Amino acid sequence: MRIGILGSGLMGGKLGTIFARAGHEVVFSFARSNDKLKKLARDAQGNGRAGTPGEAVKEAGALLLAVHWSRIDDVLKQAGDLSGKVIVTCSLPMDAGNTKLIVANASSGAEELTKKIPRARVVSAFNTVPSEVLFGVYEARRKASRPSLVYCGDDESGKAVAAELIRDAGFDPIDAGPLRIARYTEQFALLVGQLAYEGEGGPELAYRFERFGK
Amino acid sequence: MRIGILGSGLMGGKLGTIFARAGHEVVFSFARSNDKLKKLARDAQGNGRAGTPGEAVKEAGALLLAVHWSRIDDVLKQAGDLSGKVIVTCSLPMDAGNTKLIVANASSGAEELTKKIPRARVVSAFNTVPSEVLFGVYEARRKASRPSLVYCGDDESGKAVAAELIRDAGFDPIDAGPLRIARYTEQFALLVGQLAYEGEGGPELAYRFERFGK
Repeated sequence: MRIGILGSGLMGGKLGTIFARAGHEVVFSFARSNDKLKKLARDAQGNGRAGTPGEAVKEAGALLLAVHWSRIDDVLKQAGDLSGKVIVTCSLPMDAGNTKLIVANASSGAEELTKKIPRARVVSAFNTVPSEVLFGVYEARRKASRPSLVYCGDDESGKAVAAELIRDAGFDPIDAGPLRIARYTEQFALLVGQLAYEGEGGPELAYRFERFGK
Repeated sequence: MRIGILGSGLMGGKLGTIFARAGHEVVFSFARSNDKLKKLARDAQGNGRAGTPGEAVKEAGALLLAVHWSRIDDVLKQAGDLSGKVIVTCSLPMDAGNTKLIVANASSGAEELTKKIPRARVVSAFNTVPSEVLFGVYEARRKASRPSLVYCGDDESGKAVAAELIRDAGFDPIDAGPLRIARYTEQFALLVGQLAYEGEGGPELAYRFERFGK
């Protein structure tokens, strides 16, 4: 699959690299510098290249949206027409200082994004784990018990694409239901961030849902 | 330890039973009927008895608050003076129809509870797993890898008591920080509820945080 990365920072850069290693063709776009994009493309060893957001969108089977919330409008404008595209978003609706969610409870970042691009197929995923754990999970992907990753959305075919990418990255995809469940998952993301960055044991944190006593 | 159960419904009844089995002296109070309280006490086999909320509070080393949010004021009034008491709350601030949180984002149920009983030592715990998983986790408590249970609070000695009860119930206590983190954990509770009751696999759901790739 061709995957366009809209926002090649900590999350987008690492996930794009992982998707490239998993065999996908990845276009990295929208980083602080062109050098960063070129380095990411080089490290992807034949499966990656640097481009503009418009080039990332072209022929993409899926787009990963991984920009700070304050950059959403800018990157969408540069991306152009997203009708019918699968948009996997891990962008949390944080304020400029990254202290709190500016959309919460009565809506979610994923739902607000959908209002901006109603003809795209938005799936919320990859926001509930810190970027620091991604390579570790990918390296451990052949072990028996993978960590979970929750995702949600209103478009079933888009969700199937997202689930495939989640699996490619070494996680066990957990369908949490419709897009409005992002109201919970985005808050869960802040809990995971609290445990990862303020708790003991380091930021390489993932989670697994398990059943007991059935 | 003597543990008073304020609200002996699905969560309070099961957790009280587990605390009794773990060797604590449990007073069950505040259920729909006195018969329910007497049955819980009988099933606790020597370690439990039925009482009023006032009796549950008397000499208690910890109180479990497990009532529907609409009953908080009633049970607190019946409980009497809670100064200095450790209150472990699993009550989520749900509306009457259990469809959504009526306190969220800018505050949490645990913080609102603290405003009502400022001299008590409030810890938020046990709200992030469904009641259906409790006996299964307790039965599996000697296995190598226990499920996690997040808790938070502003009183360190109260948190130590809560951590002990979490361990007694078969979980691995995860300190999520100050009480305001309940803003995230209460939303996480709704995510777990969504997966447990709307997802596939049944409601016997727990979670474990794990580190990868250190």
